[in-house]
Amino acid sequence: MDRRKFIKGATIAAVGATAATLATPAIAAGVKQLKMVTSWPKGFPGLGTGAQEFADRVTTVSNGEIEIKLYAAGELVGALEVHDAVQAGTADLYSSAEYYYGGKSQALNFFTAVPFGLTSNEMDAWIQHGGGQELWDEVSAQFNIKCFSGMNTGVQMGGWFTKEINSIEDFKGLKMRIPGLGGAVHSKLGGTPVTLPGGEIMPALQAGTIDATEWVGPWNDMAFGFYKVAKHAYYPGFHEPGSILSLGFNLDVWEGFNKNEQALIETCAAATNDHMSAEFNARSTSALYDLVNKHGVTYHEYSDEIFKAMGVASKEVLAEVAEADALTKKVHDSFMAFRKDALVWSEYSDASYMRKRALVDF
Amino acid sequence: MDRRKFIKGATIAAVGATAATLATPAIAAGVKQLKMVTSWPKGFPGLGTGAQEFADRVTTVSNGEIEIKLYAAGELVGALEVHDAVQAGTADLYSSAEYYYGGKSQALNFFTAVPFGLTSNEMDAWIQHGGGQELWDEVSAQFNIKCFSGMNTGVQMGGWFTKEINSIEDFKGLKMRIPGLGGAVHSKLGGTPVTLPGGEIMPALQAGTIDATEWVGPWNDMAFGFYKVAKHAYYPGFHEPGSILSLGFNLDVWEGFNKNEQALIETCAAATNDHMSAEFNARSTSALYDLVNKHGVTYHEYSDEIFKAMGVASKEVLAEVAEADALTKKVHDSFMAFRKDALVWSEYSDASYMRKRALVDF
Repeated sequence: MDRRKFIKGATIAAVGATAATLATPAIAAGVKQLKMVTSWPKGFPGLGTGAQEFADRVTTVSNGEIEIKLYAAGELVGALEVHDAVQAGTADLYSSAEYYYGGKSQALNFFTAVPFGLTSNEMDAWIQHGGGQELWDEVSAQFNIKCFSGMNTGVQMGGWFTKEINSIEDFKGLKMRIPGLGGAVHSKLGGTPVTLPGGEIMPALQAGTIDATEWVGPWNDMAFGFYKVAKHAYYPGFHEPGSILSLGFNLDVWEGFNKNEQALIETCAAATNDHMSAEFNARSTSALYDLVNKHGVTYHEYSDEIFKAMGVASKEVLAEVAEADALTKKVHDSFMAFRKDALVWSEYSDASYMRKRALVDF
Repeated sequence: MDRRKFIKGATIAAVGATAATLATPAIAAGVKQLKMVTSWPKGFPGLGTGAQEFADRVTTVSNGEIEIKLYAAGELVGALEVHDAVQAGTADLYSSAEYYYGGKSQALNFFTAVPFGLTSNEMDAWIQHGGGQELWDEVSAQFNIKCFSGMNTGVQMGGWFTKEINSIEDFKGLKMRIPGLGGAVHSKLGGTPVTLPGGEIMPALQAGTIDATEWVGPWNDMAFGFYKVAKHAYYPGFHEPGSILSLGFNLDVWEGFNKNEQALIETCAAATNDHMSAEFNARSTSALYDLVNKHGVTYHEYSDEIFKAMGVASKEVLAEVAEADALTKKVHDSFMAFRKDALVWSEYSDASYMRKRALVDF
């Protein structure tokens, strides 16, 4: 009850502050026309096509009463300017990743991915049934935004390197594209983290501005062609074990919808989350095979020793982030409490099953 | 293209055969009113509430233009008669599990769960992006039905036993409620499998008609109170590593919807699949704690030796099922080919991550 009041209060304040530019979608012949800005290159597999799928679902399911026009990164605003644009009402909604905006609030990191954190299934469970969505609403209301999970990449890979990583020492001095809390851990390991939107990674890698990069996994990464420059890929990633790609609505636009329209949008977001997360899992193996067999990539498993060092550094980073401000602490504590229980259930279910399934060769 | 034609052909034949009772939903004041029969007790956590969630989403998102009235098991037809009822047009749709109807086609087993088969993430990937849905359409068209995934339980637990299971020999002569292909494996291990709807398990266990039972996992099983009779629970289950609960529409009813209505229904099914699967994961740990701490249950991990024997028997059962008929063989081959690739990706992602995450204590 108090939280609802807090959110309402924040909304009213935000509306008051930006009254001159109060966001309302364009309406033509009774059709609500929304502008959706994204952090992804046009038609990019998974991230871009998933954003388009959400837009198409809303248009079809609403019988064309809500239209969403998608703009790729750079078409209306830059890849990492979409949060600002939706906050200001220049655009109605975005498809992006919350951790790009960690500079506005460290709490936003928890709504993309946390080093040594939750897998996609565990993330969905926390957001939808563990208090995560309510906290996300509280954090985003500060920026006049209402968010949903729009897809989940699943466990991301460790990244692309021009040289082998044989010990944790090899991260020292390494300039690597790795955003969010993963970047903070990379820094703690002695490396230099860089945040770049997807479309700018390959030129930076080719120019030698960065030595290494992570992006998502085989399916997404192949589309950018990182294998042309870096032949060593590592798995699993410690830094993004189940990343949410978010859909963020301008809060005035969101509150302008009636209850049924809101349910329609929430339902389309959940359906896209379901369908796209499954696509990441379905397309990864054949991409992995192509990278290894056609493009000469070597996939190495990180040694337990390296992974342990990453874990120790991750723990330090999380303890520090928790001290950023009261709301970040509240989100951190909810996430970590959920993580404790989630690990128990994952061991009883997926982890033990996958371990034992491998005992018999089919 | 050929498959579409086949389905169309099958549909027309079915319509011809049942022309006298051609199913069309009731229409009152422009509202399509659908009858949904289910295999679950009224309001049963997860299975029953998930079916209700789907019904509510369709009604809300369609602005009340499609209404779905839910009937619990036994209210309109018996728990395991819902497939027949929807085939005949007595009801418009069902919420159930396909493997209950393996007697109509062995192929249906693959659309619930397969021993040593796919996890929930892998199942979603096969159904939505690996050809599974198209095969499900082909199989179900024989029964004038169109299906969707409505939720996924995740890895199910091994079950409830009154005595400890210390070796594979302990399954000999054991009368256990275990449906589908899991039941066939149980039989191969020397036990007697029994199929009972959920609501009939507890009385059978109390009367001693069965010695043991599986159902789903801690959250669902606690609601039935199996712990009152059987204090030994085992994990993980070999038999249902990611069971789909299905939504099945009478095909004439389905084809009576326009394209937008069909997209609305498909979207509501995917959203419910997303939301309910997350709920199974979110609610399991606290139920597990309650079962152990309040109800004196001991959860044992199946030994590798027992699990291996289950795997060998599962492999035999799958080889036999593949020979049932040409369509079952086609489904089996698609499933097993997908399984091969899915295991590779799961090892690179969830399995290796969960193994390594456990190296550091948070």
